[in-house]
Amino acid sequence: MAKSWAARDRHGLPCFFAVGDMASIAAVWDGPVERIGDPAEAPAVFSRALPCLHLCEGATIVPGTPDIEGARTAFQSLEVAVGLARSETVGALVTAPVSKAQLADVGFTHPGQTEFIAERCGVGKSNVAMMLAGPTLRVVPLTIHMPYRAVPEALTVDLVRSRAIVTARGLQRNFGIAAPRLALAGLNPHAGENGLLGDEEQTLLAPALAAIREEGIDITGPHPADALFSPRARAHYDAALCCYHDQALIPIKALHFDEGVNITLGLPIVRVSPDHGTAFDIAGQGRADPGAMIAALRMAASAARHRLAHAATV
Amino acid sequence: MAKSWAARDRHGLPCFFAVGDMASIAAVWDGPVERIGDPAEAPAVFSRALPCLHLCEGATIVPGTPDIEGARTAFQSLEVAVGLARSETVGALVTAPVSKAQLADVGFTHPGQTEFIAERCGVGKSNVAMMLAGPTLRVVPLTIHMPYRAVPEALTVDLVRSRAIVTARGLQRNFGIAAPRLALAGLNPHAGENGLLGDEEQTLLAPALAAIREEGIDITGPHPADALFSPRARAHYDAALCCYHDQALIPIKALHFDEGVNITLGLPIVRVSPDHGTAFDIAGQGRADPGAMIAALRMAASAARHRLAHAATV
Repeated sequence: MAKSWAARDRHGLPCFFAVGDMASIAAVWDGPVERIGDPAEAPAVFSRALPCLHLCEGATIVPGTPDIEGARTAFQSLEVAVGLARSETVGALVTAPVSKAQLADVGFTHPGQTEFIAERCGVGKSNVAMMLAGPTLRVVPLTIHMPYRAVPEALTVDLVRSRAIVTARGLQRNFGIAAPRLALAGLNPHAGENGLLGDEEQTLLAPALAAIREEGIDITGPHPADALFSPRARAHYDAALCCYHDQALIPIKALHFDEGVNITLGLPIVRVSPDHGTAFDIAGQGRADPGAMIAALRMAASAARHRLAHAATV
Repeated sequence: MAKSWAARDRHGLPCFFAVGDMASIAAVWDGPVERIGDPAEAPAVFSRALPCLHLCEGATIVPGTPDIEGARTAFQSLEVAVGLARSETVGALVTAPVSKAQLADVGFTHPGQTEFIAERCGVGKSNVAMMLAGPTLRVVPLTIHMPYRAVPEALTVDLVRSRAIVTARGLQRNFGIAAPRLALAGLNPHAGENGLLGDEEQTLLAPALAAIREEGIDITGPHPADALFSPRARAHYDAALCCYHDQALIPIKALHFDEGVNITLGLPIVRVSPDHGTAFDIAGQGRADPGAMIAALRMAASAARHRLAHAATV
């Protein structure tokens, strides 16, 4: 995030500020950081330094080491940042990767940040969807962190339908796409080839598609997944719904590894995060690629603008 | 193939000739086609016309319609072409897509052309592997045309091991890579995350990797599949072994849709085909993209050269 501040003019980034531990930022970055006591001070500071709403007075955090103090600050920072977004003090929330193992040690019992944020926003997890977005492709995995074998049972008509609705609304609100076009990938190779290679396309995805169309949503499929991400195919939809984690994440990371952004759809706030893991192994070495964080900040600003416009017209 | 002939100089294509029905080519293409009675005549003809070894005297084939006559010609052409490659009359065999449904009607009982060719070459199907190759990525699916649910049971240590051996040898013989580096993708998301998201990485892929390394083959993994096809990751291996069809074909088609080539490894001959389906819907309309066929012809020539060099040094 510090590196992104340094690149703020080149990338036309809007005003943003860090929430967390000042010393942690200073330890890994030579540039200017300035403490703010109130988010309202951020715009005045932003042109000369990265504003930081400092938390955890007195904590000693060693950058690059996922320890208890760091986890406690991360947890507290997330709580404060969600509150700022909920109260519309800020237009968007951008979260950085965290070490989940350490977070569990400080009483963070959610599977991930997304579930925590959804709960704080009072939104049930079935009404939230994770979208990975890059310059030429947006994907929404219908199932996420589960074994390969568990996917067919986890896919239900209700799940596919609710994710499609969240995705269509999310494209309208966060991307300003008035009439979103969705594409649904098949589960089986060649989308089952008329039942020859599996029947979930007929037994599950076909009724799901019918239910989604009943909502007035424009959706095509089930498409053979291997052809769905070719350049020509990508031009025909605004987001692809994918049956499982790797079906969605393989193409987005193959095509847009350093520009991929994770945006949580279905929340009352804008929540974006860079589509990367933690980089503890290279913390403080100046080697972290800020591309994904810059892309996340840009998308957050864009989604916040689209939401204002959408709210004004609805 | 006719369009590829027209582009022969621009792409530096070697001499090639068609095997099949002259009239079918003439019906969909305005350029010069010249009948040859013997492959030895091809080089003299190639500079002025597409040489065609004409078969099926008297058959009437309607281009764009997958009928019995067309299927019979396709079957017979394949038989003749394999024979020419087996006898080393030609350096490589390039096959075009065929309509499998129609082929079945003329007594072609193999699941696809690859199985037919392997049988004619006297090679068991477990010793053959399909590789999809593009300019920056080569992938080998360990399992291919089966339902999603069938994949975990189909993956065995023996299968993974034999495909890895065929792939390593294929990279040496067809690509001139003396010490091939393989990468194995995990089956589960995040490669199972230490068993949290599935255990095939530990129960199956780990022993398979050990067995492959015992053969002296350089292989890494199991890797989280979503990160394996990013630009930086691709630089670290010569071919990725993928657990299932879409895991391999999604990235190759996302990255190299018009340049992807299917090369069959493990055969005594060079066999290459464009990584596209049939295009019956646009036959004769001049709209077919010849990119994939040109890429296939180039790869066939390159593989034939590497084989000669490899044979000379072994």
